[in-house]
Amino acid sequence: MTSALAWDGRRLRLLDQTLLPAEETWIDLEGAVDTAAAIARLAVRGAPNIGIAAAYGLAMAIASAPGDDELLAAASTLREARPTAVNLAWAVDRVRAAALDAPIDERAAVARTEAETIHASEDAASAAIALLGADLLAGSRRILTHCNTGALACGGTGSALAVAIELAARDDITVLACETRPLLQGARLTIWELRRAGIAHELLVDGAAAGLIRRGEIDAVIVGCDRVAANGDVANKVGTYAHALAASAAGIPFIVAGPTSTIDASIASGEEIVIEERDMDEVRHAGGALLTGIDTPCRNPAFDVTPAELISAIVTERGIHRPAYTDSLADAA
Amino acid sequence: MTSALAWDGRRLRLLDQTLLPAEETWIDLEGAVDTAAAIARLAVRGAPNIGIAAAYGLAMAIASAPGDDELLAAASTLREARPTAVNLAWAVDRVRAAALDAPIDERAAVARTEAETIHASEDAASAAIALLGADLLAGSRRILTHCNTGALACGGTGSALAVAIELAARDDITVLACETRPLLQGARLTIWELRRAGIAHELLVDGAAAGLIRRGEIDAVIVGCDRVAANGDVANKVGTYAHALAASAAGIPFIVAGPTSTIDASIASGEEIVIEERDMDEVRHAGGALLTGIDTPCRNPAFDVTPAELISAIVTERGIHRPAYTDSLADAA
Repeated sequence: MTSALAWDGRRLRLLDQTLLPAEETWIDLEGAVDTAAAIARLAVRGAPNIGIAAAYGLAMAIASAPGDDELLAAASTLREARPTAVNLAWAVDRVRAAALDAPIDERAAVARTEAETIHASEDAASAAIALLGADLLAGSRRILTHCNTGALACGGTGSALAVAIELAARDDITVLACETRPLLQGARLTIWELRRAGIAHELLVDGAAAGLIRRGEIDAVIVGCDRVAANGDVANKVGTYAHALAASAAGIPFIVAGPTSTIDASIASGEEIVIEERDMDEVRHAGGALLTGIDTPCRNPAFDVTPAELISAIVTERGIHRPAYTDSLADAA
Repeated sequence: MTSALAWDGRRLRLLDQTLLPAEETWIDLEGAVDTAAAIARLAVRGAPNIGIAAAYGLAMAIASAPGDDELLAAASTLREARPTAVNLAWAVDRVRAAALDAPIDERAAVARTEAETIHASEDAASAAIALLGADLLAGSRRILTHCNTGALACGGTGSALAVAIELAARDDITVLACETRPLLQGARLTIWELRRAGIAHELLVDGAAAGLIRRGEIDAVIVGCDRVAANGDVANKVGTYAHALAASAAGIPFIVAGPTSTIDASIASGEEIVIEERDMDEVRHAGGALLTGIDTPCRNPAFDVTPAELISAIVTERGIHRPAYTDSLADAA
């Protein structure tokens, strides 16, 4: 297992995921501003890991400046680093609330403990999700996934990828990884994790997934999630929705895996999820190479929303949730 | 209009599309072997243009060696350059049959005339498709397309892109071009053509299309075709099927445009279409940059099949064909 986060009790170190797989470079962080910047540029990514990093970022900021004004400013800086994943706001709000409740000279210790608790609970959630998801997918041999949902994205061994890793420990499986344009988290990160784990894998372009599903070459699709609405609509990395449509048309399971920290009970449906639109240069380039005109106008939504009716089950550390999701998710959130 | 093919009556010149948009380099061809190689490596591409190039390739070969053995060998070399587009076999078979029917000293002239006739009829088909398709999509302002189906792919101004160009002459429209991994015909070629034509455009990664369609940001999808089965199932560039699923789910038109030379009345359905699997290195790289491990195992189907029930209409030079397609296409083929 390769964690992308290292916490020594005082400082957070991150494996810079923008440089993988070519370089394994760790960066040292010391407060809210540099942690927020690392989140915004995707040096750390994956909804659960964004939450963990932000929690530590705020804890470090509070250790330096525990006063109300500085604390609230640091929390706000971190909360605004990215809009779509709910874990970021959730983790920041937990550390902020715990610290504000404490006397000023105890805030550093309280914030640190809260961040460490979040980290430990996400690790435990990953382990539970892996077991539950592998039970659910028993017998599936060819598993398609999208983006990166392993140890680089989450606590423990991840969410969707943790399920595949657990399945591989039980049976001969092949993981088909979508490259995940524009930032290629599948080609760069998921392949890197699968290779290190010794699991059979194949890489494909995102557009090839639906056709392979239609031809019967995939047994199940499993993906992570950045935000789950109360009704079970799921925001996840752009490209996910098309895989769900294809899985539904072919009658194969489409499974979402993620810790309960990604459930946002405050929104009724996916219509309310803000979709981050990122820089056009991400679309114009791949792996550093310019693919089109330097000033070609682009659309670059980072996520899309898969409606609950296309999702066979949502696996959290609290259990396997099935449609209709509203009551089941409300109990888990 | 930028044609990708130039024929001077003796020799074929091709704009090498693997180098666009960075370089505009023309290559000179002189027979069947080099023309087949140019087709296989996608220096020339697009089902109609593959057919035109192959026709000229065979005509050049016959001009050098008009005997039966050489003629049949040249035809076979060209026919095997790529498996999926039906135009290749169709055009080669037409030139071969015309030449074999002629006395040996007239074969060069007959083959040349047959190839020039194919080229002229594909140009005329493009013009007809543009007008019919633009009538069909009147009122659509935001048109999504996939791969490249303009003058670089077809006779005239193309198939699907010709429709968009005609629409743009009538109304303010924006063309949303999917980049079309792995070989990026959208990012490289369609954007290049749209820019030269002065048509508003936006580039997106393939996985972003379905989400934008779901959010109501697209009025219609129009794509080309590499082979149309008798029942209306369509093989087209990998990634097409997912767009069709999303269009169907959103209730917007999904239109296929192509000359009747892409109809293969000999196959009942898409199940019989051979899908070309290309080199893994195309998936491992983009724009020359390595994206993953140098030996990462990949799947690389070049096409997928969209079932007829997801297609709102098929536009050929003979008219607008609507479901059920079997009778309508049989009349046109």
